[in-house]
Parts: sequence; C-alpha cells; structure tokens
Amino acid sequence: MPRFSTSVSALRSSAIRELMSLASRPDIISFAGGMPGNELFPVDEVEALFKSLDLKAKQAAFQYGPTPGLPSLLESLGGFLERKGLPVKSNRLLITTGSQQALNILGRAFVDPGDRVLTEYPCFIGAIAAFRSCGAEIVALPVDEEGIDIARLVEEVRRPDPAKFLYITPYFHNPAGLLYSSLRKRQLIETLQGSDIPLIEDDAYGDLWFSEEDRDRLQPIKSIDPEGIDICYTGSFSKILGPGLRLGWLLAPESIWEKCELIKQSADACSPSFSQVIADAFIRSGKIDSYIASVRQEYKRRAACMTEALRKHLPDYVKWNEPKGGFYIWLTLPEGADATVILKHAIEGGAVFVTGSTFDPDGTRNNSIRLSYCNNNPEEIERGIPIVANAIRKVCG
Amino acid sequence: MPRFSTSVSALRSSAIRELMSLASRPDIISFAGGMPGNELFPVDEVEALFKSLDLKAKQAAFQYGPTPGLPSLLESLGGFLERKGLPVKSNRLLITTGSQQALNILGRAFVDPGDRVLTEYPCFIGAIAAFRSCGAEIVALPVDEEGIDIARLVEEVRRPDPAKFLYITPYFHNPAGLLYSSLRKRQLIETLQGSDIPLIEDDAYGDLWFSEEDRDRLQPIKSIDPEGIDICYTGSFSKILGPGLRLGWLLAPESIWEKCELIKQSADACSPSFSQVIADAFIRSGKIDSYIASVRQEYKRRAACMTEALRKHLPDYVKWNEPKGGFYIWLTLPEGADATVILKHAIEGGAVFVTGSTFDPDGTRNNSIRLSYCNNNPEEIERGIPIVANAIRKVCG
Repeated sequence: MPRFSTSVSALRSSAIRELMSLASRPDIISFAGGMPGNELFPVDEVEALFKSLDLKAKQAAFQYGPTPGLPSLLESLGGFLERKGLPVKSNRLLITTGSQQALNILGRAFVDPGDRVLTEYPCFIGAIAAFRSCGAEIVALPVDEEGIDIARLVEEVRRPDPAKFLYITPYFHNPAGLLYSSLRKRQLIETLQGSDIPLIEDDAYGDLWFSEEDRDRLQPIKSIDPEGIDICYTGSFSKILGPGLRLGWLLAPESIWEKCELIKQSADACSPSFSQVIADAFIRSGKIDSYIASVRQEYKRRAACMTEALRKHLPDYVKWNEPKGGFYIWLTLPEGADATVILKHAIEGGAVFVTGSTFDPDGTRNNSIRLSYCNNNPEEIERGIPIVANAIRKVCG
Repeated sequence: MPRFSTSVSALRSSAIRELMSLASRPDIISFAGGMPGNELFPVDEVEALFKSLDLKAKQAAFQYGPTPGLPSLLESLGGFLERKGLPVKSNRLLITTGSQQALNILGRAFVDPGDRVLTEYPCFIGAIAAFRSCGAEIVALPVDEEGIDIARLVEEVRRPDPAKFLYITPYFHNPAGLLYSSLRKRQLIETLQGSDIPLIEDDAYGDLWFSEEDRDRLQPIKSIDPEGIDICYTGSFSKILGPGLRLGWLLAPESIWEKCELIKQSADACSPSFSQVIADAFIRSGKIDSYIASVRQEYKRRAACMTEALRKHLPDYVKWNEPKGGFYIWLTLPEGADATVILKHAIEGGAVFVTGSTFDPDGTRNNSIRLSYCNNNPEEIERGIPIVANAIRKVCG
C-alpha cells in the first residue's frame, strides 16, 4: 500500500527554487525572480499607518477573523475593485492567503483527479502547481502576442468531455509579458459563451501599466460581465503593497464562492488578520493609489533600460516582446534551442534567468527564456544582459 | 457531468460559524469561541519590537520568503522547540499558515479519497474539515479522562487495510479539555510501534498549563522520539502570540517533510513574512516566555472561576473535567440528551456554547457541550453559567 497520496506524487520541486539560492549570491545578477525590489516597499508608510490605528483595530490584527475576510477590508477592497468596474455587488469577494491560494482553492473546487483543465502555454508556474496538486491533467493552449489561440480553444470547447475551467492571465502575462488585445478577449468570450466552462481570470499585474493608451485593453473580462460565463477573478496585494503580506482575493459568483469559502475554512481558517488590517489601512488612507503610481514609474524605467540593453546585445534571431507593463520579458529562441544549456553558460558568466520549460505544464518546450526586470537597477541590467546575450550566442551561434 | 469536485461536496458549513455571529451580539455571553481574549494580546510589545528592527528586517516582512519559512524564524523557533526537548535537528521544521494548514497539508500528503484516518472522539473541528477536504473517511476512537481508547486502537492497527494516520491532541484537548496520562501515551506508543501508521501529534495548547505538577504529562511523544513511529508534530503561535498572525509549524521526518513542503508551495507559496518577522522578534527578545507566563495565569484564573460556577449551578448528572490547562471544559449529559435543544434555551437566556455533535465526525453524538473560558471575564462567567445550567435543567430535568 503506497504511503503517500497519489496527488502529491505529481508535484515536483520547481527549477525556480534552485535558482533562488543562486540569485542570493552577491556575484550573480538575477533576472530570475518575480519579486518586487526590497527598496520599493512602503515600509515607513505602513509603520506609520499601523501606529495611527486605534487599539481595537490593532487587537483585531492579532485575532482570528471571519473566513471570507475582515469586514472592513472586504468593504475597502470592494470599493477599490468597483473603481475598476468590477461587479462586486452581484458577486462575492473572498480574501485569500495570496492569489496562489485562490488558484489552489479553485482547483480544489472544480477538479477531481484526472479531470482536464485548460491553461495558456506558457503558464504561470504557481497555477501549474496548484492545479496539479488536485490531480488535474493540464492542457496548455499556446498564446501569441494578442492572447490565447482561439482555434485551439474552439476545439476544446467542442469536446464531448469539456475541461473543468480555463485559466488565463491576460494582463502582463507571467511569463510571456503579453497584454491581451480587446479583439482577442471578445473572441474568447464568444467561444466560452454557452460552453459551461468557467473562466479563471488572473489579474495580479494589471495595475502596473506603463502607458495611458493601453488602459482600454486592461478592462477585466469580469468587469464586462458577459452573459453565460461564470468568471472567477483573482488578484493580489503582492505587486501593489508586498507579497510578504500573503494577501490576494477572489471575486466569484455566489454558488462558486460558497464552495471556495468552505475549502478556505479547511485550508487555513482565515487569511492573516495582521496583513488584512494593514492592507485595509493602506487602501483607506489613499496611499495605495500614490504607491501604485510610483512603482508603475519605477518598473517602466527598469523595463525601458532592459529593452534598450536587449536591443543592443541580443542576436536578431531572438524574438521578444516590448513590455507594456508588469515584470517580464519573454525571449523566444530558434526552434530546438535548449535554454538549460544557455543558463549554464549564463551562470558561469554571472547571471541567471528562468528557462522556458519551467512554464510548460509538459516540462518539455525549452527554447525560451523569462527575464524579470522588477528587481534590478539599471547598472545591473546593463551589466547582466550582455552576459545573457553571450550565453545565447555560445549555444545558438 | 457534475460541476464541482467530489471532495468539496463532503464539506459542510460548521455550526461554530453560525454561533460566532450570535457571539458578537452584546446581549449574548459567549462560551463558544476558541479565541484568546482581545485584551490579552501583546499589542504594545509587538509594535515596539517591530519599530526596533533594522530596515532590512522590515523589508523582509514585505517580501516573499522561502516556502519552509524565514531562516531566522526557523532558527529561533527551532531553539524554542528544542528547549521543550523536541528533536529539531534530526527532523525538519516547516512554518505553516496556522496549524490548521499543517493539518490540511498532512491530509493531502497521506490521503487519497476514500482512505481511512483515525482521530479521537470528540475531535477538533478544524482537523475534521482538513481531513474531510481530502476525501478521508474519518474513524473516531473515543477518549476517556486519560486519553484515547487503546483497545479500539489495537483493533484498528490489526486491520488488513490500516489507516493512513492517527491524529491526536493529547495536551488540553479541544474540545474535551483532557490531558493524556503518561501511561496512556506509553500504551499508545507500544500500539503504534511496528504498525506503519504515522502519528500526528497536535500540541496547540501545551504551553497553557496551570500547575507545575502536570508538566511531566506535557512531554510531547515527539520528544520521546520512540523508534518505529513516524511522528508529525504540529504547533501554533495562535495561543501564545495571536491567531491573527496565522502561524503554525510542523516538525516531521525528512521524507514526510519533503512532500509537505511541495504541497505548501502549491497551497500559498510561503507563510506570511510579516507575521514571521514579528514572531521571530517575539522569540528572540525573550518576550514570548514572559507573555506565555502571564496568559497562563490569566487562563488559570478564568478556568477556576468557571469551575466554581459549574460546581455551584450544574445538576449532579452532568459529568465534566476540571481543566488542567488550555481553553475548554467538556460537559457530558445523560445519554440521549440533545445539546441542540439545550442551546436554543440557552440562547433565549442570553448565552451560547458549542454542541457536542460539532466535534463528532459522524455529526450524531450530541449529549455533550463545549464551554470555553478563554474569552470571558469573571463577571460574564458568573452571569452566563447559571443560564447554561438552567437550559440543561429545562431539557434534562
């Protein structure tokens, strides 16, 4: 009799974690992590905000809260999301321990072992891990620069055994960096309507746009509220306050929310109250808006610096997107190139990144590289990109 | 095709949550919750500790941490646990988002849908929810005033299809309030040795003892480290700092730890760094020891007040334990009594408690009542207990 459960056997240690130990070496420039720069966190503001709270609010930070979230945060976050046009009143909001937990909960709500779920290729590794931990069979549909492949989605929708849900990250995709076009979103909506396949719309990076003109494309599908599709919208404080708070959210129709709340209760009873009290004060003080505006500018600067270095140093045969927001640039190498070999050369030179196969649910396609610019100053970027470019040339010529 | 997964169908909303909304009414005295009193939290101490940290530590509070926990907390908590005699060096420590998450992770590590797991009857409702969410079939073995029924355990161990694990809470049991005797622990060890059934030892309340003379009985089985049993030891900061931090831990043998760490990664990536930085400072400053000493005294006072009131007001046919620590007193009513009917009368009178069936995995046995004294001052206890006693008399005569 096997000792461990079958679903845990499907989980593997991710390559990113090994890279993180390399990334902590002072002699290595890391383009691997998806974490904000430490120097960007609003440390003083949060400390002052906490100090200004009354005793009752401070005590609440130490106490259990209701499973769905502290009422005060549900209200302030609800307002924040309504200002983005999200249908907060006709749906229900669940505070989660990071949006990673929201994805895990949704997996548990819908998936029995062996069930198929649809994702993009490439796909956020946290989603791969969350869905795989429920025993899901992941079918990854490719994206191009405008979004997911609609022809492939149509095929999937027509199957006699449709998938349990479709998971997408349309706004500054991790790792592909792309922003869905409005046309592609409309096609996606039309394809899903009447299919009975719920949509999980992950919007962890949407606030980090670089140009006013892209804001139309940032309108969540959830806010369009198209008829005939159950949309579960997830978001996070990780990029607009700090991932160390472990706070995210899920906005879902009542019937789905009810299941998710029960799963949440059994998972960790409630999200950290300390973090919730801080996030609530951060929203209510208005500091969240000025903070988002400031990090937006900073990431825009870092992205511009990296695109300039890439333009200067990369061989022409490498295809890549110019980021419109978020944290990532995705390099596509010639067919057959092996990013793992390139990574070895880059480490020798003193730089690390994440290889493409990390974001492939099948773990095979590896002619791609994810570069993050979120945690590097210009000097590091200018020093590190030539190392990556040289490693590519060594392998691909 | 059913929309939701089969495991979520097994989850039910717990009666405790409905009670909590009653408990927030100012005209109701609540003996229902298992939460520390708000006035007991070390608010000022924690605020001063956070203020005294250097910028690097404060920034770390906002950042992702490694999945197993922040290295500094793993070190300081490791020291705290070693002082209790726990084998920290020969096992591995995982910081979890409350000990509720530790139980959920252990369920996911061991249980495939339909697998049997052993618990006590009565059993902590968080454990029931965690194991049920993995599809476990829960077999609850009765406890008496010294611990679990060994004869029943022997039967289970001898089955050809043994259970995936045994879960116990030997130290100030929730809800039964009992403290295992040293003899019963020895019998339990001998029964499990050679059985291949791992033991989950939940020690969320062990620090809250009322009398020095009971300290021998508080030695964790994990610290005895008996040969031939894989013991997963769980604990929590909830009762010795604050549940709102959502911080617990799991100490387990390497092979089990590895699976649990992968599950944790897919569940929420890491535990809240903010909470971890605070807990680390709380341990390193030594304030945790003086704080535990002070709440121990306070809960002892509240327990004494409640036992005095029970002695005075309860009919003789109600059996109950005098608490030696922890938060709870468990009343056993005559066979056939229905605590739900008693609760209705108590609510009319202005007091609430939790009915016994809540702690029964089968949800049937209901001739018992859990009273908490952790969150009540003497005046409330003296006013509330006669209401409970009257409700019992109304139903049981």
